Amino acid sequence: MPDLDLQTAQRLIIATARPRPTESIPLAASLDRVTALGVGARLPVPHFDQALMDGFAITGHDLDRATDELQLTIVGEIAAGRTHLPRLRPGQTLRIMTGGAVPHGAALIIPQEECREQEGRLRVPFRPNRRNWIRARGEILARGKVIVGKGELVRPEHLPLLATAGVSEIVVHQRPRAAVLSTGSELVEIGAAPDKGQVISGNPLLLDGLIRHATNLPPTIGMVPDRPGRIIDQLTALLAQPVDVIITTGGMGPGRYDLLPRVFQEMGVEILYRSLKIRPGKGTMAGVLGNTLLFALPGPPPAVRILFNELVLPALKKIHGLKRVLPANRRAVLTREVRVKRNGLQHLLAGVQGSRENTTTVRPAAHGEPADAIIVIPGRRRRVKAGELVCYHPA
Amino acid sequence: MPDLDLQTAQRLIIATARPRPTESIPLAASLDRVTALGVGARLPVPHFDQALMDGFAITGHDLDRATDELQLTIVGEIAAGRTHLPRLRPGQTLRIMTGGAVPHGAALIIPQEECREQEGRLRVPFRPNRRNWIRARGEILARGKVIVGKGELVRPEHLPLLATAGVSEIVVHQRPRAAVLSTGSELVEIGAAPDKGQVISGNPLLLDGLIRHATNLPPTIGMVPDRPGRIIDQLTALLAQPVDVIITTGGMGPGRYDLLPRVFQEMGVEILYRSLKIRPGKGTMAGVLGNTLLFALPGPPPAVRILFNELVLPALKKIHGLKRVLPANRRAVLTREVRVKRNGLQHLLAGVQGSRENTTTVRPAAHGEPADAIIVIPGRRRRVKAGELVCYHPA
Repeated sequence: MPDLDLQTAQRLIIATARPRPTESIPLAASLDRVTALGVGARLPVPHFDQALMDGFAITGHDLDRATDELQLTIVGEIAAGRTHLPRLRPGQTLRIMTGGAVPHGAALIIPQEECREQEGRLRVPFRPNRRNWIRARGEILARGKVIVGKGELVRPEHLPLLATAGVSEIVVHQRPRAAVLSTGSELVEIGAAPDKGQVISGNPLLLDGLIRHATNLPPTIGMVPDRPGRIIDQLTALLAQPVDVIITTGGMGPGRYDLLPRVFQEMGVEILYRSLKIRPGKGTMAGVLGNTLLFALPGPPPAVRILFNELVLPALKKIHGLKRVLPANRRAVLTREVRVKRNGLQHLLAGVQGSRENTTTVRPAAHGEPADAIIVIPGRRRRVKAGELVCYHPA
Repeated sequence: MPDLDLQTAQRLIIATARPRPTESIPLAASLDRVTALGVGARLPVPHFDQALMDGFAITGHDLDRATDELQLTIVGEIAAGRTHLPRLRPGQTLRIMTGGAVPHGAALIIPQEECREQEGRLRVPFRPNRRNWIRARGEILARGKVIVGKGELVRPEHLPLLATAGVSEIVVHQRPRAAVLSTGSELVEIGAAPDKGQVISGNPLLLDGLIRHATNLPPTIGMVPDRPGRIIDQLTALLAQPVDVIITTGGMGPGRYDLLPRVFQEMGVEILYRSLKIRPGKGTMAGVLGNTLLFALPGPPPAVRILFNELVLPALKKIHGLKRVLPANRRAVLTREVRVKRNGLQHLLAGVQGSRENTTTVRPAAHGEPADAIIVIPGRRRRVKAGELVCYHPA
């Protein structure tokens, strides 16, 4: 099996991942869920003709016959929320509040500051071609108009329009269930006092954070020493839960303790790739067993951060039902020189986006610094100078 | 009280908001919390000299005396995780795995691919100025070095370094507690079949989503008709919970049902501002009662979205203990013409960021489209053409 480039690996992963089943949930619980169907307006918005100003409703008949000044009898008031609406007749007017339902017979609203009230009578100076200050039924949104397309994340901005358009339930995909298994006989739990030779494991919390941000669901987390039998036992238990994605870390170097390739083979994992033409990521593997995608990532957390974004996140997005799953490809001006090994591999660096006037910039992130970009350095480059244009993926 | 500009209003709000008390929590629960103190490394990283390759450890003495080839006796193996470490003596070598602790007496690691094993003996060709393939104790991070500064959000990337540096508890600010009260006699709950004149309320869900994204804590949500007594009762109940921020929507127009100014006055709210020189936002108010900040926002959800970002979010960030609380001021090329009313007010528009080559672009968002920018149009402009440079705040 030849080493794959990043794009081919991503295509393979996406072709393999399947969206989770759907479920109908209350709109109030739909934030950050992914729509399984386009969601249309069940009611037009607004669903009745609405006053846009505090003022007075008058008939078209009165407007047509007026020449100098209208004199009308005030016969009542329509506050916002009033539902039993009188019919307005010529010679009459109704006080109406912003948002109130325009009564039958009314053709326009005259803003109150243009009128003069006097003993239950209203005087309105004549003015041709007045604006009617009415928002017509369906003016913002017609019934059936799509508010959120299929395969979109439900965002705060969608919710008021969905609610007002009468949507109270929404069909979404179930969320992806992920598990993390960090391998390494040197690993000890957080809170332990490590001996020389032992390391407090950092990858479980890193992946817990990345997965929560991606799916809003905490992953199952485990740690296991470098023993194939123990790793197989733990993976078998995770597969029985079941989970959609399993991410292992460690056990992927080229030495004699490179366990995951052996483990995957023994378990009958169908391999998607064994090695990639990228750095980090040369020692990374992915495969399928039943309905579960397995990713074997290397041990160093900075590599895990980058490869999660490039390989695991697209899979989680596809399983979540999202339409757009691959990282966007953007360009920015590099603001700090980058040097990489001359080894023909595409290099990926954690980066931080910025701006200078209206120019997008990017720089490599410091160790442990939150990254919002993965900078892509082509295989033929050994050095990219500050000021050069580079490609990056928002992360 | 004169109308304030946006910056002055923001400054007043930030000067009034107080960070919440602190608490110590497990590192594993610290994602998206805000540090109340800088968090330093309790252990150096790595906390022992670590092998960077699978190979063989040899003494400096052997290296110094070698001329053509070293011939050494293999006396054992150090796998990753081995804690009882032998002392290495001249003439001896130990097989060592990547991540393994470098034993006493060892001066460097020779990668295994450079060596030849033969019946328990190792042959290593002589080569001057070899790289030592050892990561020295503290090379990544010295003990005490700050990993996350005070007033920062804990991000996934911080977690592995914190864990590995021996941090297991972290002092953070408690999260801001917010409440939403939507006023309007026309409002009915989601799921209701609204009569003409009634509207299904959209602001509670919009603010629920925005607040969850900002604080990871769901707000208390309520709805109340346009009656001052009822509004005061509900606000009094919220103040007793207690909450740090109350956001009301509606009841802020210039008509006779403009309730919130009256309500604030009756309750003895100390007013920060009554009106701003911005649109939307002319009819918006903020004040303080006890330790609670109150924001009276207008009714239309698009205005609520914008004013939340510009006025409420900075307050929530300050209360959460964040160091940077104001929206960043960026520039971008506008890609669609904008026209606003010529009224001398600064106009704020929900926008969507984009890019064209390495140029940052921004355009107005469609109604109900998720926004990631607030576009700022200065008061003197009536029309900004596509291609012009505009200011925006990432949102």
